[in-house]
Amino acid sequence: MIHTLEWTDHGVRFLDQTKLPTEETYVICSTPEQVADAICTMIVRGAPAIGVAAAMGIALAAKNSAAESPDELKDEIDHAGELIAKTRPTAVNLFWAIQRMKEKLEQVRTQPVAHIKHALIEEAQRMHAEDIAANQAMGRHGATLMPSSGGVLTHCNAGALATAGYGTALGVIRAAVEQGKRIHVYADETRPFLQGARLTAWELMKDGIPTTVISDNMAGAMMRQGKIGAIVVGADRIAANGDVANKIGTYTVAVLAREHRIPFYVAAPISTVDLACPDGSKIPIEQRNVIEISHIGGKQIVPDGVSIENPAFDVTPAKYLAAIITERGIARAPYPESLAALAGKTKVEV
Amino acid sequence: MIHTLEWTDHGVRFLDQTKLPTEETYVICSTPEQVADAICTMIVRGAPAIGVAAAMGIALAAKNSAAESPDELKDEIDHAGELIAKTRPTAVNLFWAIQRMKEKLEQVRTQPVAHIKHALIEEAQRMHAEDIAANQAMGRHGATLMPSSGGVLTHCNAGALATAGYGTALGVIRAAVEQGKRIHVYADETRPFLQGARLTAWELMKDGIPTTVISDNMAGAMMRQGKIGAIVVGADRIAANGDVANKIGTYTVAVLAREHRIPFYVAAPISTVDLACPDGSKIPIEQRNVIEISHIGGKQIVPDGVSIENPAFDVTPAKYLAAIITERGIARAPYPESLAALAGKTKVEV
Repeated sequence: MIHTLEWTDHGVRFLDQTKLPTEETYVICSTPEQVADAICTMIVRGAPAIGVAAAMGIALAAKNSAAESPDELKDEIDHAGELIAKTRPTAVNLFWAIQRMKEKLEQVRTQPVAHIKHALIEEAQRMHAEDIAANQAMGRHGATLMPSSGGVLTHCNAGALATAGYGTALGVIRAAVEQGKRIHVYADETRPFLQGARLTAWELMKDGIPTTVISDNMAGAMMRQGKIGAIVVGADRIAANGDVANKIGTYTVAVLAREHRIPFYVAAPISTVDLACPDGSKIPIEQRNVIEISHIGGKQIVPDGVSIENPAFDVTPAKYLAAIITERGIARAPYPESLAALAGKTKVEV
Repeated sequence: MIHTLEWTDHGVRFLDQTKLPTEETYVICSTPEQVADAICTMIVRGAPAIGVAAAMGIALAAKNSAAESPDELKDEIDHAGELIAKTRPTAVNLFWAIQRMKEKLEQVRTQPVAHIKHALIEEAQRMHAEDIAANQAMGRHGATLMPSSGGVLTHCNAGALATAGYGTALGVIRAAVEQGKRIHVYADETRPFLQGARLTAWELMKDGIPTTVISDNMAGAMMRQGKIGAIVVGADRIAANGDVANKIGTYTVAVLAREHRIPFYVAAPISTVDLACPDGSKIPIEQRNVIEISHIGGKQIVPDGVSIENPAFDVTPAKYLAAIITERGIARAPYPESLAALAGKTKVEV
């Protein structure tokens, strides 16, 4: 069992993902500021995990509060929400989680402060449990789409480490393996932050799922050699029309998939679908520090004075997708209808 | 002026490309064994540079020889050729250069040993000079294909550092810039060995050509954003049908180029064309040590026990190419005819 993040008596305990795969160490955050910092520095990353982390950061604000009235507490919660909202712009789960915590506060606002605090802490823990359940449901739906044997390619890490547990894309693979499918995972190393090499390889090895790490630029050659039967990735935000923002390089994989007629699947919880966003062009794309490209492990690889780009995400148009796998079922084109229908469902199918 | 490799009185002097971009240091090889080692460890790399290095390694065998007869010298030359032929399997220039040195020996075999030695040393130096002249001719032909302004993407390093000087793909870009074209180069960093980040960026910066380094998996996003007007890469071996073996990731770039209707050019000397090889499936692909993937700058990024692939090259089928730029002119489809015609020409057009 991988404990990506957990609510403890001392604060939120994060598995420090910047240290993997060589060190398995944990960081305790006891304030919303510390949680915001953990999100910015990618101690915790992955859209669903960021969402749960944001909720827990707000729960910490409630826990630590000396407020004497619900209004005073609300101000502090709003402040924590603003702080956490500024950390990373692309994953919509972050904003969804903050909004859900605010709604919970509104629901219990007439109660005493101690009750409100308790309700917020409980809500954050509920979101943690729901995320795992959603991933398991996603796995059951998605496993049917996986080949009975052979190579499945994934990009970045959409696994237990990107969620409260089990994973989205890797949850689909885990469920397929649990059903007896003999899958060999090809993991793109995923420059610049190397989530595939460091994190996907680490968690799949823990589960005994055979995995081969390749550099991102090998994916095309592997597909051409017939080694890849399906592709499954996660998502940071899905627009109403089905366009998908995900880790930089996802679009390249999708184009390669189409060229080789390999089905390209996206697995993400409904909280990743942003119906207010009409298409991918409206999704804000985070630009990260160029040092992630210019240096690796402290070693300089780009000469001083050369320009560098470092967009953390790209957008894959809906036309490249074979399906979107959610905890409520599988959406297929036309996505405006299928996503709206799934988002309208009120209960998780389990 | 970049001195990739040079014949000196003390041996062959190589700019140590494993140390770039942070250190500009040189290595002197005074024996064929040392040259073979410099090729294996990628102190020198790039198909045309490897060809010239091989010729110079054989010239060193001649220079160092204590042979008293032409037959004895021939045995030593054959031995040095075998040694150097084992270093890297994909770039055909290596075998072409060894063959050319053997042919030179045959031409002068009836002369005294001292004359034969002199002729071999001279031949290797001639190949160095001819490589630069070929790149400049390639540049003149290819520059006409470059856009008058805007982004041109390249993969790996097919520059001065991959040749005796000026470069193949980067020679085309240099010639276009010399003609007044306002080109901004996008350089794929090119995992695992990072030739784009380390070498292409370094040599283009030296020449004042604006360059942006991106990770390999950003190329698709850059194309989709309309930032790339043309693509030009080098080649390690071109089959008779126009299939191109080049640095791993080239095929992915070619597929992306086709999807975005961006012309994809290959620039390489005629010595890279292997008419004896009918198509890309017959080109041997070097598999390199997985430590190039698992570690960067000494830092481990893949957990122990996980499988890794590390093919150094891939094959791009001819159908993805807009043209092949050689020192003798531009070849277009159908390549079996156009390449044979160019290879049949006996003189470099200058």
